[in-house]
Amino acid sequence: MKMIEGGVCAAQGFTASGVHCGIRKNRDKRDLALIVSEKRAAAAAVYTQNLVKGAPLLVTKENLADGYASAVICNSGNANTCNANGVEIARDMCALVEKYTGVPAADVIVASTGVIGQPLDIAPIAGGMEALASGLGRDSLPAAEAILTTDTRVKSVAVEFSLDGKTARLGGIAKGSGMIHPNMATMLVFVTTDAAISPAMLQKALSADVKKSFNRVSVDGDTSTNDMCAILANGMAGNAEIAGEGADYDAFCAALNAVTSALCRMIARDGEGATKLVECALAGAKTQAVADAVSKSVICSSLVKAAMFGADANWGRVLCAIGYAGADVDVNKVDVAFRSAAGRVGVCKNGAGVPFSEEEAKKVLLEEEVVIEVNLNDGAYSSVAWGCDLTYDYVKINGDYRT
Amino acid sequence: MKMIEGGVCAAQGFTASGVHCGIRKNRDKRDLALIVSEKRAAAAAVYTQNLVKGAPLLVTKENLADGYASAVICNSGNANTCNANGVEIARDMCALVEKYTGVPAADVIVASTGVIGQPLDIAPIAGGMEALASGLGRDSLPAAEAILTTDTRVKSVAVEFSLDGKTARLGGIAKGSGMIHPNMATMLVFVTTDAAISPAMLQKALSADVKKSFNRVSVDGDTSTNDMCAILANGMAGNAEIAGEGADYDAFCAALNAVTSALCRMIARDGEGATKLVECALAGAKTQAVADAVSKSVICSSLVKAAMFGADANWGRVLCAIGYAGADVDVNKVDVAFRSAAGRVGVCKNGAGVPFSEEEAKKVLLEEEVVIEVNLNDGAYSSVAWGCDLTYDYVKINGDYRT
Repeated sequence: MKMIEGGVCAAQGFTASGVHCGIRKNRDKRDLALIVSEKRAAAAAVYTQNLVKGAPLLVTKENLADGYASAVICNSGNANTCNANGVEIARDMCALVEKYTGVPAADVIVASTGVIGQPLDIAPIAGGMEALASGLGRDSLPAAEAILTTDTRVKSVAVEFSLDGKTARLGGIAKGSGMIHPNMATMLVFVTTDAAISPAMLQKALSADVKKSFNRVSVDGDTSTNDMCAILANGMAGNAEIAGEGADYDAFCAALNAVTSALCRMIARDGEGATKLVECALAGAKTQAVADAVSKSVICSSLVKAAMFGADANWGRVLCAIGYAGADVDVNKVDVAFRSAAGRVGVCKNGAGVPFSEEEAKKVLLEEEVVIEVNLNDGAYSSVAWGCDLTYDYVKINGDYRT
Repeated sequence: MKMIEGGVCAAQGFTASGVHCGIRKNRDKRDLALIVSEKRAAAAAVYTQNLVKGAPLLVTKENLADGYASAVICNSGNANTCNANGVEIARDMCALVEKYTGVPAADVIVASTGVIGQPLDIAPIAGGMEALASGLGRDSLPAAEAILTTDTRVKSVAVEFSLDGKTARLGGIAKGSGMIHPNMATMLVFVTTDAAISPAMLQKALSADVKKSFNRVSVDGDTSTNDMCAILANGMAGNAEIAGEGADYDAFCAALNAVTSALCRMIARDGEGATKLVECALAGAKTQAVADAVSKSVICSSLVKAAMFGADANWGRVLCAIGYAGADVDVNKVDVAFRSAAGRVGVCKNGAGVPFSEEEAKKVLLEEEVVIEVNLNDGAYSSVAWGCDLTYDYVKINGDYRT
């Protein structure tokens, strides 16, 4: 497997496009994205577990009921959530895709992201469709830009891998930044592949993957109403369709996880206001559930996040977050260290502090990617969780997001 | 029942004191507090559910095993947590109380708050004891000041009430500010009363009360390692000892809740960096558990908190927080309004937005105390939760707390 360029257009048969249609006021910001597969593709998706669900998710769920789809349409600037006519608007978006691309409306994945509870006008979308459809091409970037909200960076990644003697590709784009605390699903992520895989196995692979990828990310503890991760597999790599477990399924899952975990790191690093990626690498847990709960608790702690912003080696807050994780942990066995490109500093052994150089720790924590290593010394399970620091800019961005 | 002055010295037989002994560098900040009852008092406490527990909590639990105590000693500036010799130091603090006041060490409640994981030196405490003991008097303020950390306001409240034909008093002081997300217990709160009540009934009253008082508060979602709420009841009001349920017990519980819920509001209002108190008043829930979970979820949302800071009527974030509360809610029945001294603005009806004046909403949200009214229209249970806004100053305070 190797990393390649191309995002959602890396796989054969996929084109994408992104335009500014006018949902957002800033004319320099694209706000409408389209991805199309030239062959009808096996499709799978996972959705937010928030009881308040964006209307597009309901429509996508209907459209994916048969396990196949051929296109994705997604707008930013408005979540189309908590609106009386939301489902109608989402269906209208699918109908527009049919009108301009020929893909049947029932084969369209529809998604929206932005402010909750403001009616979404179909007019700018209808007005932008011609440019959107005619712009379809092999460049993934305009679509990757169009799905962003407060994100500061495009999130795009792809891999090439061997499958059944054929070369397959799998790539994805993501929207992250705020209201990021996925639960059983994720923020907006679209993944395409030319691997041949049955809808059932595709759903199985995706559902298993999100538990160790997107569900391990948190920016601010708020589980969005519009989280969705969807994948299209059009089979154009020519491999024998993956219809059960085995070496091919494992190779596919490995490729999928390479892409999703890279997107996770990008989403966490570009959390609203974030200056750094904070990873909790947890080892020595009694069970997988303990490993998952404790690592996530550490990266979710507002106090740990603020300390990371200040490059303050305040490891007591890490212990505190371990202690309230609701997991079976012997706190007297816990070791903690901070690690980054600048080095590694052990700060806690068996639940108590050890002498360390504050200066060295500061150097480690000033890096853009910091790992909080936790060893529970209590078993063989491990886990990783990705978050970011809590900064003035997070407050600034969210103190006045709507204006 | 009426509100009175006097904090923990409002009840008969209690004296208090607070000094700067040198744990904190700032010589203007008191860092050691003492409360003494002239009669041995029934005593009860609740503690953090964090698995990492401050050493003072372990010692206090031992000392309260017999249901009685006569004094409280508490330092700020160091949490005496995750230190190898923490229990020893906490016991030394109790021994110092015995030496300087005559209260047996086994009748002392000991508490600490501040940085986790830094050894606590007994020397400044020993050096400050003489001044501390000789300063004991009927003024609650020095003790109320000495337990504070990043708090900007003293938290003190007391009530007078009738019990069995006698006049009883009950008052408390609290330390709040950061790492505030109590779970089955609370931040540091000390309550005194001259009511006569058995240790068992006192513990019962306190345990029931914290569920609807301190456990309904969150500043930053971080459950501290040192949360403790302790109450001393010395019986000097002269009422017949409350030894079971009935009118007297109910009157006592009402007085207790008047004091604790007032302290809750003070703690939330003075959350680290907070500019306002944010209350979620929830009605119409199917069960008490739903009411509690949903109201707490709303005040814990970083995005709701940041919107409150910006006085932005972004009610979609309230809906989002309701949706991920993990509670059985029909989101299509939810109504939301914002209320304050400046008025009341309905923003959501049956889960969808209603037209409202942004200008009016801004005026409402600019007040120092804002209520988010949520009606689930799904049952008869209600709940209140207290929080605060998320501000630049929260990040500033916690980005560099230790220096």
